[in-house]
Amino acid sequence: MWGGRFAGAPDKVMEAINASISFDKHLWRQDIRASKAHVAMLAAQDIIDAEAAERISGGLDAIAAEYEAEGVTENPALEDIHMHVEARLKELIGVDAGRLHTARSRNDQVATDFKLFVREACDEADALLKALQSALLDRAEEHADTIMPGFTHLQSGQPVTLGHHLMAYVEMLARDRSRYTDARRRMNLCPLGTAALAGTPYPVDRDATAEALGFDGPARNSIDAVSDRDFALDYLMASTTCALHLSRLAEEIVIWASQPFGFVKLPDAWSTGSSIMPQKRNPDAAELVRGHSGRVLGAMVGMATMLKGLPLAYAKDLQDDKPPVLEVRKLLTLSLEAMRGMMAEIKFVPDKLRAAAASGHATATDLADWLVRERGVPFRDAHHIAGSAVAAAEAKGVNLVQLTVENLKAIDERLDETALDVMTLEASVASRTSFGGTAPARVREAVAEARKSLD
Amino acid sequence: MWGGRFAGAPDKVMEAINASISFDKHLWRQDIRASKAHVAMLAAQDIIDAEAAERISGGLDAIAAEYEAEGVTENPALEDIHMHVEARLKELIGVDAGRLHTARSRNDQVATDFKLFVREACDEADALLKALQSALLDRAEEHADTIMPGFTHLQSGQPVTLGHHLMAYVEMLARDRSRYTDARRRMNLCPLGTAALAGTPYPVDRDATAEALGFDGPARNSIDAVSDRDFALDYLMASTTCALHLSRLAEEIVIWASQPFGFVKLPDAWSTGSSIMPQKRNPDAAELVRGHSGRVLGAMVGMATMLKGLPLAYAKDLQDDKPPVLEVRKLLTLSLEAMRGMMAEIKFVPDKLRAAAASGHATATDLADWLVRERGVPFRDAHHIAGSAVAAAEAKGVNLVQLTVENLKAIDERLDETALDVMTLEASVASRTSFGGTAPARVREAVAEARKSLD
Amino acid sequence: MWGGRFAGAPDKVMEAINASISFDKHLWRQDIRASKAHVAMLAAQDIIDAEAAERISGGLDAIAAEYEAEGVTENPALEDIHMHVEARLKELIGVDAGRLHTARSRNDQVATDFKLFVREACDEADALLKALQSALLDRAEEHADTIMPGFTHLQSGQPVTLGHHLMAYVEMLARDRSRYTDARRRMNLCPLGTAALAGTPYPVDRDATAEALGFDGPARNSIDAVSDRDFALDYLMASTTCALHLSRLAEEIVIWASQPFGFVKLPDAWSTGSSIMPQKRNPDAAELVRGHSGRVLGAMVGMATMLKGLPLAYAKDLQDDKPPVLEVRKLLTLSLEAMRGMMAEIKFVPDKLRAAAASGHATATDLADWLVRERGVPFRDAHHIAGSAVAAAEAKGVNLVQLTVENLKAIDERLDETALDVMTLEASVASRTSFGGTAPARVREAVAEARKSLD
Amino acid sequence: MWGGRFAGAPDKVMEAINASISFDKHLWRQDIRASKAHVAMLAAQDIIDAEAAERISGGLDAIAAEYEAEGVTENPALEDIHMHVEARLKELIGVDAGRLHTARSRNDQVATDFKLFVREACDEADALLKALQSALLDRAEEHADTIMPGFTHLQSGQPVTLGHHLMAYVEMLARDRSRYTDARRRMNLCPLGTAALAGTPYPVDRDATAEALGFDGPARNSIDAVSDRDFALDYLMASTTCALHLSRLAEEIVIWASQPFGFVKLPDAWSTGSSIMPQKRNPDAAELVRGHSGRVLGAMVGMATMLKGLPLAYAKDLQDDKPPVLEVRKLLTLSLEAMRGMMAEIKFVPDKLRAAAASGHATATDLADWLVRERGVPFRDAHHIAGSAVAAAEAKGVNLVQLTVENLKAIDERLDETALDVMTLEASVASRTSFGGTAPARVREAVAEARKSLD
Repeated sequence: MWGGRFAGAPDKVMEAINASISFDKHLWRQDIRASKAHVAMLAAQDIIDAEAAERISGGLDAIAAEYEAEGVTENPALEDIHMHVEARLKELIGVDAGRLHTARSRNDQVATDFKLFVREACDEADALLKALQSALLDRAEEHADTIMPGFTHLQSGQPVTLGHHLMAYVEMLARDRSRYTDARRRMNLCPLGTAALAGTPYPVDRDATAEALGFDGPARNSIDAVSDRDFALDYLMASTTCALHLSRLAEEIVIWASQPFGFVKLPDAWSTGSSIMPQKRNPDAAELVRGHSGRVLGAMVGMATMLKGLPLAYAKDLQDDKPPVLEVRKLLTLSLEAMRGMMAEIKFVPDKLRAAAASGHATATDLADWLVRERGVPFRDAHHIAGSAVAAAEAKGVNLVQLTVENLKAIDERLDETALDVMTLEASVASRTSFGGTAPARVREAVAEARKSLD
Repeated sequence: MWGGRFAGAPDKVMEAINASISFDKHLWRQDIRASKAHVAMLAAQDIIDAEAAERISGGLDAIAAEYEAEGVTENPALEDIHMHVEARLKELIGVDAGRLHTARSRNDQVATDFKLFVREACDEADALLKALQSALLDRAEEHADTIMPGFTHLQSGQPVTLGHHLMAYVEMLARDRSRYTDARRRMNLCPLGTAALAGTPYPVDRDATAEALGFDGPARNSIDAVSDRDFALDYLMASTTCALHLSRLAEEIVIWASQPFGFVKLPDAWSTGSSIMPQKRNPDAAELVRGHSGRVLGAMVGMATMLKGLPLAYAKDLQDDKPPVLEVRKLLTLSLEAMRGMMAEIKFVPDKLRAAAASGHATATDLADWLVRERGVPFRDAHHIAGSAVAAAEAKGVNLVQLTVENLKAIDERLDETALDVMTLEASVASRTSFGGTAPARVREAVAEARKSLD
Repeated sequence: MWGGRFAGAPDKVMEAINASISFDKHLWRQDIRASKAHVAMLAAQDIIDAEAAERISGGLDAIAAEYEAEGVTENPALEDIHMHVEARLKELIGVDAGRLHTARSRNDQVATDFKLFVREACDEADALLKALQSALLDRAEEHADTIMPGFTHLQSGQPVTLGHHLMAYVEMLARDRSRYTDARRRMNLCPLGTAALAGTPYPVDRDATAEALGFDGPARNSIDAVSDRDFALDYLMASTTCALHLSRLAEEIVIWASQPFGFVKLPDAWSTGSSIMPQKRNPDAAELVRGHSGRVLGAMVGMATMLKGLPLAYAKDLQDDKPPVLEVRKLLTLSLEAMRGMMAEIKFVPDKLRAAAASGHATATDLADWLVRERGVPFRDAHHIAGSAVAAAEAKGVNLVQLTVENLKAIDERLDETALDVMTLEASVASRTSFGGTAPARVREAVAEARKSLD
Repeated sequence: MWGGRFAGAPDKVMEAINASISFDKHLWRQDIRASKAHVAMLAAQDIIDAEAAERISGGLDAIAAEYEAEGVTENPALEDIHMHVEARLKELIGVDAGRLHTARSRNDQVATDFKLFVREACDEADALLKALQSALLDRAEEHADTIMPGFTHLQSGQPVTLGHHLMAYVEMLARDRSRYTDARRRMNLCPLGTAALAGTPYPVDRDATAEALGFDGPARNSIDAVSDRDFALDYLMASTTCALHLSRLAEEIVIWASQPFGFVKLPDAWSTGSSIMPQKRNPDAAELVRGHSGRVLGAMVGMATMLKGLPLAYAKDLQDDKPPVLEVRKLLTLSLEAMRGMMAEIKFVPDKLRAAAASGHATATDLADWLVRERGVPFRDAHHIAGSAVAAAEAKGVNLVQLTVENLKAIDERLDETALDVMTLEASVASRTSFGGTAPARVREAVAEARKSLD
């Protein structure tokens, strides 16, 4: 395929390191789709004649049918998916196959194929994220009133509702979706027709191929078009942030499922056992989601480092763009699907959640806030008094709310029985009605709002 | 500051690892600005009285003036910039200082301060990118006709114009700018008023503080608001891609400045010498820009890994969000400014550029295309014939364009003298008029278009 | 300093991006030490005369005294620590200062200085690791019998002793130490005398300078010597693995300190409070250690990416070798010291540990093993029977050990009362006497063995 | 396989995310080998009877033969290679198959299998590195006298010999080999017999299995043994540094093969062409080696991030240890083999190398050194004078060595004709006889020394 200049054959190792068919075969649909758009344009512009175009297009359809049925038969000597398709096309339709590569190069071809693939991966991630958001919204609504400890530093901080906690992830996933949307918009310019690097002297209609392939228009600079892999990096970066969000939720599931916490129970369908310990019920899926975040990050770093310091235009290093994306798409799809399944079916244990919230003096802040609001104490001083109350409770071995009015007055004269009322879990949670706060009414509003923006 | 519960003092090592003042002092402007917005809202909502608010606000102004004049005096026992400001405020205005922390926590405070800082960093990056684009546009226009070799694999591929080559970077930088724009838009919701993690029982007006600080609105979920660092990661990711683009340009400058290439000369203002080799004129700035891309990537990886697996809400790990951003902002600002300076002042050497384009049989594709267009040869066959012409030229030790018509006819009967005409550098470049192609007219159009969208 | 060829001054941005004094000032001790070794050698080899050498050496001592007392005064125009020292030397002793740079270049000078610095960092890490091991050994011995749940997947798996658990970290840290030892040995060849990149025509005695600086000998290839930063990467890689180990221990502290676990209490000296929640006692130091692992990894990635694709020999990108090392040394020292302090002073809560081990059917494996040993049941079948016993206990709402002999017999006829005996926590732990197992006697042996190898 | 406690079947997504057979099938040899060692020990210790052991061992041999012939048939429901082997064993030998898993768990089993695999990967890397060193030594010896420019900042610095330059890589690779040696030694303790995490009550002989599998002894702590993946990280880190070294050599090949440099010619066996530009001869293999360094780094980052913050002992996240190692082994093997092939067959072009050395005033340092040695000028002043000579040559448009004695004297009276003699390329190179210097005699010594240590 390299024409008349080469005398010797490639070394076997050269062939092995050079061949990309083992992974770019996954792009056969994109390759054939782009070739069909290209050949239709060539015919429309009279660059090749209509009959040849028809033969080529028919041949490409036939190849697509073959690949759909039997997969791609790999031949390392044919290097990549582009040459596999073209070689098969020649077998099927003969010499006209050689007209398909008019006014294009593998450089713009692979950039186009790969963009189509990455764009689809963005769309897929968005759909999976939406499904996970939807599962979270259902559980958040169900648990808008369920009280649990709100942690900072994994220490009980203030009571919150489980619904509110789950809604935090709905927010994260919304940002994830917006990243894929941004990435998709930014990448949606078509490289086809920029040829090797300089453009082409044929009277191509780049707007036509761009439109046929669902792009917003043609890429603006031919050198950039063939050497740009920002779009793949954007996908990997959006996926890294998304995987990190999932790793946080996964960590919580692992901790919550531990016996000391006992906040959740994973059904059999989402647990695994042990080959040696018969009693085990392990949250493997959550751990794998958490672990996968490392590999997603690694794949992104691999791509980024590969790009560092590459002179323009195309360099073969860029062939290392596909394995990271293929790996991440697989890992992310599994992670999102697993998380959706777990979120839908996990059993929360309200008693355990509430009991944990009730320990740990979690409403000490409410006491401080009462002093500010009802007694005009500056917050800093109020905070100090509430801290003394906690110390007193600890010294007595009771929880803060179990202190008597006398106990309180011994700490500060200004405290009285109404101060005790603000320290119940329900009062605490209900009081946090600021926008974005954990009050059940606020949570229900947030769920409704999120549902609306989901549709 | 931790109130009445603690008996012992922190260990010296504890204090050292915990203190963030050595780096979060760089956020003093943001901290004071956010506190002023907060106190104004507290007064407007009657949560604190107007006089106290005025005293606080005046005190904050006084502190700002001090810091502006003398910098922040660091005291590790005061841990962070928030406590430094509050402690100084107490010195200045007394007990009312304790009212400032009403209805907020350091968790929402630091998230707000840091968002303001990162948002500013995005704006700065955008402005610097624009300035670099502008410098590139000037040089691209100047060299819209300057012929150079277009490389793939650092091998001479097809002639292009230097203007076209430089415009590829204008495209990359435009994408970089759009990433900062996206990041800015996505982050622009205000955490203030979400307090520790659960919201607050005070009747705060979060819309008011959001507006006062230039946000599009308040953040929607309090748990997310205090544990979210997506905005910093977005900034670091956008910066990583940007730094990688700069590393490519830097690599080209280094290669172009080498004696064998000689494509560019760096003026004294942008060269360094050697402590031992008196003849040296080194492209240090370009190398540093290239090297910095590694550190920018590393900073981003550091932040991402820190975030992995963190349970909600706030955890102290998040304190490690600032050093990477501070470092990247410094490195990126220097890199963009240095690149702008170099681009503005670098001397291109058209003779060397043209001579390189003239060697290497760079117009062999033009010969193949001629066969397709003028003789109806399928591209694959045309490519093979042109390859044989190159082999023939090599065998004779001449360049492709130096072959005679007889030489050409010996390779393929269909070749004639008009084929020689398409193989000149000027003809080759001028012929690539497809949209996004290297033809000088196209380059001028692209420059004009880019200028328009710059303004 | 670049000699007679430069006409123009550097651009201000050029000067700013180029100057390394803000960070390489931390190498002033190494720089002066290496210069003293160099000048002594120059004199011994008659390359410069003895009196000049004495003046230079005296001048260097004077500079060292100044820096020790007042720090390094930074002057960006002097670029780096080497030029600062030389410029000051010239002020102090005049024209002879210019003889110091004979037979060396900044390229070999900085490689030597930096190796000395990194070697010291290795030694420091080793000492800190040893101190942490020592603290762990004390606590492991103290808790050789303390029973806790052994977790897999954070699910109770089998009872173990706390001493055994802590000894796992002693093993990890031993490997960490061996990595620093390996790194130190591998790096311990002296670059001095390889000059700019090609060696030097002066009759230098590289063995002498190597020995004077504590190296095992001179580096073997001059081009490699000035372009090699493996030693810094080795340090960063060893530190990354070490930081990851610490992050695992830190994670355990955070989880163990949570209210639901309650396995440990952090003393006031190692806890922090909250600016809003008066009851909080947060494990900030552990969280910071965990978070720092991200930054350490990031620093290593930054260095690695910087090195990617650099042609030989020295390139200015290499100047980006120091900030990652400086940052990691600071983070790692703090992390190791904080972890040692916490490990020494943390309060374990044996009741909570034991109670957690007693729940969760953690001795089900012991039942299965009993069936294999005492009844000849193949392990797979025994595992299945034990699993049924767990299911029966769960159905009854009791723990496995609370099943009666009748309950057991209903599951499998071969079970009898002696089976119940193997299921106590003490029996389970005591039975695991295989080498490396959790039996208290084994743990004591392991502690003794580790103590021996520590000294 | 999880025994009698589970009622429901796993969700399809759960099964998909959980199954590792698609990659751990590559460990079938290690799994069977370790099982055979285990069963032999069980029999020797009378833990199972000899006949059962024989049947198991025979069955394992039969499975190995099947896998060798036909590969592993994957069944996601069987999860991993361990269960595949055990399930097949049960089909072959019946109920006794259930005795194989006595006194072990998958946790120690997989750690053992994977260590065997990684150890082999270390050995393989070492052998491939040695082969590449050998190829480099041959070429270094061949070109011990071939003069080329020694670059710093890719600017001509001082003349060196090509042999010397290639020997720099021999040094790097020697360090790489020592890293694999260190990693191998550090990992060479056997996890088998540590069971799930706590050790085992069976009277196992861990020394025996360790010895049978070529380990130096048994791992010392059971909790560490099942949760430790340092060995894989050590391999990935050693491989990252190695890949970075290769990326530097690859970068040089790409630059040297460019038309303006023309230092090397790649034979057809190591070049590729273009689908559109018939004249192209691209260094794809070098570019792929360079690009692969990114993916190797990424794989290492993925593993490191996965490990961050994992509590002890085994967690399912650890399953993500294998894909990075499998990928790196493949990439590194290809890279080393390709580099060996290229190094063996690449054609250096001495004329081009020498011509480049002759330009660029590369012997200006020799002039400065002459002034120091022959005229007693302090180096700094000598450096300045030599710089002026370069400026004078540039002003005349000649190379430094073309200056006349008059020209020299006009610059500095102390210069005379003998100064001209030191400035020839041959004199310059020959003069650098310091240990590790570029003088041809030194290079030949270094080659001989390296050859000796290779054997």
